[in-house]
Amino acid sequence: MLGGNGFIGSHLVDALASSGAWVRVFDRAGSQRHQVVRGVDYRYGEFSDHATLAESLADTDLVIHLISTTVPGTANLDPIADIEGNLIGTVRLLQQMRDVGVPKLLFLSSGGTVYGNTEMSPIPEAHSRNPLSSYGIVKSAIESYIAMYSTLFGLKSLVLRVSNPYGPRQSHLGVQGVIPTFFHRVKTGDQIKIWGDGTNLRDYLYISDLISFIVEAVRLDLNGVFNVGSGQGASVSDILQLVSEVTGVDPVVEYLPARRFDVKNVVLDVSKACAALQWQPKVALREGCELYWRWLNQRGV
Amino acid sequence: MLGGNGFIGSHLVDALASSGAWVRVFDRAGSQRHQVVRGVDYRYGEFSDHATLAESLADTDLVIHLISTTVPGTANLDPIADIEGNLIGTVRLLQQMRDVGVPKLLFLSSGGTVYGNTEMSPIPEAHSRNPLSSYGIVKSAIESYIAMYSTLFGLKSLVLRVSNPYGPRQSHLGVQGVIPTFFHRVKTGDQIKIWGDGTNLRDYLYISDLISFIVEAVRLDLNGVFNVGSGQGASVSDILQLVSEVTGVDPVVEYLPARRFDVKNVVLDVSKACAALQWQPKVALREGCELYWRWLNQRGV
Repeated sequence: MLGGNGFIGSHLVDALASSGAWVRVFDRAGSQRHQVVRGVDYRYGEFSDHATLAESLADTDLVIHLISTTVPGTANLDPIADIEGNLIGTVRLLQQMRDVGVPKLLFLSSGGTVYGNTEMSPIPEAHSRNPLSSYGIVKSAIESYIAMYSTLFGLKSLVLRVSNPYGPRQSHLGVQGVIPTFFHRVKTGDQIKIWGDGTNLRDYLYISDLISFIVEAVRLDLNGVFNVGSGQGASVSDILQLVSEVTGVDPVVEYLPARRFDVKNVVLDVSKACAALQWQPKVALREGCELYWRWLNQRGV
Repeated sequence: MLGGNGFIGSHLVDALASSGAWVRVFDRAGSQRHQVVRGVDYRYGEFSDHATLAESLADTDLVIHLISTTVPGTANLDPIADIEGNLIGTVRLLQQMRDVGVPKLLFLSSGGTVYGNTEMSPIPEAHSRNPLSSYGIVKSAIESYIAMYSTLFGLKSLVLRVSNPYGPRQSHLGVQGVIPTFFHRVKTGDQIKIWGDGTNLRDYLYISDLISFIVEAVRLDLNGVFNVGSGQGASVSDILQLVSEVTGVDPVVEYLPARRFDVKNVVLDVSKACAALQWQPKVALREGCELYWRWLNQRGV
């Protein structure tokens, strides 16, 4: 698992290891989010470090690729670094997997950015991809290269266009993840900053629902492209209201001008994912917020 | 004009210069295809040579970007070089244009590769882009970055998804351009090689029809994304038949296995282009083949 010590990766390592799967993690460093998991084979290196990466691929049946060297809000600042780090890095990974003989790739794409602004809501997988941001352009190009490697060389692949996952261990530094950021700001008494008027709809998915989908998809060797989200839209103002209700605090908010590369609304049509695995998101948004707030208070700031 | 000494570029330089436009050409080398055009400002450098490129952008109102460091048939062999040369090169160009203050870009995309395999024929611009080859993936990603720069920084842009242009001065080395390649093989008595059974449909556009579209689009300051093709499908077998009729020679043909990254059929819906400029392709396929054959025989091999 590439990026196995990140937010999503660490939860997935826990789940796969406890299901009895043999797991190797490749990440740039140990995790500050959770403990080392017993029985897991940890390897450390940069995504750009070909030799270490190639060694880590040996004797694996599946590569789960969760590495992103950028986040949606900052990738536009240096699109060339985004292309070099993520797109070229992943194409090199595809070549290495072919050389080493790894038959399958699971790639986490971005349901929130690959479609761009759409007239349709919720958005099905067959919708055209018109990304507005470097982050989305690179994710979309990676998806195309994976499809090309499938066609040319028979690579098996599962591409998950994940909406906005949230939950414990997620970064709350304000570059990604509205929910952790808002809760954290309330806890520290800082002001909350919102780009735009707060009406943009997003599709928030609690981390355990994402993990249950991935674990089941791995178990059943699912292939193809799937949206993975709650299928429900919530606005930033809705989140603010929930944060206020869950914490009992009325947060101080500063509204900043909307960012032009932010997609207006993204709610995913997840019927394909539900049908493929008899899967359903179980944790409602309020419950997920309560779980996150409880975790944040247990853990300290 | 970047790539002004290439097949399309050289014809476009002729047409723009004779229409009285001030033209600067940036290319890696002088042309073997045609003479230097009087009054045109030639600059020489590699696309990757930032400093020379930046100098060449000064005091221009429009960049016409025709450079491709790869061709469809070979880009898959080294996708990382394709990404570095074309995608990163063009994103750097966008940054430089912003720095220097050039307000508009005309980019030649690829009608033959950005759509991938489609169920619809002819293909309209609104069709989703699902490219199968590195060449198409990179062209599609470049289109997305141009759209991003338009949204974020107000860059004006005209993106032309050109089908298969053909005509005098086109390379006949067999990596690109079925029509010149076939005629050239007949002239030298060499065997013609065809990948697949010859039934794949393509949309061939005679060079003068492409040039008339671009000249008029530049004159009227057209913006947006347009398919530019004949709107008519012809199979490789049709071309072979035409070559035989035009030359009076029955060519020797070897059929090779189909290449998996070749799109099956591509015929473009060009109604948007026709409506925007009162433009129509004028040169029918047979006439274009005759013109090419006459040119090839005047020029020698």
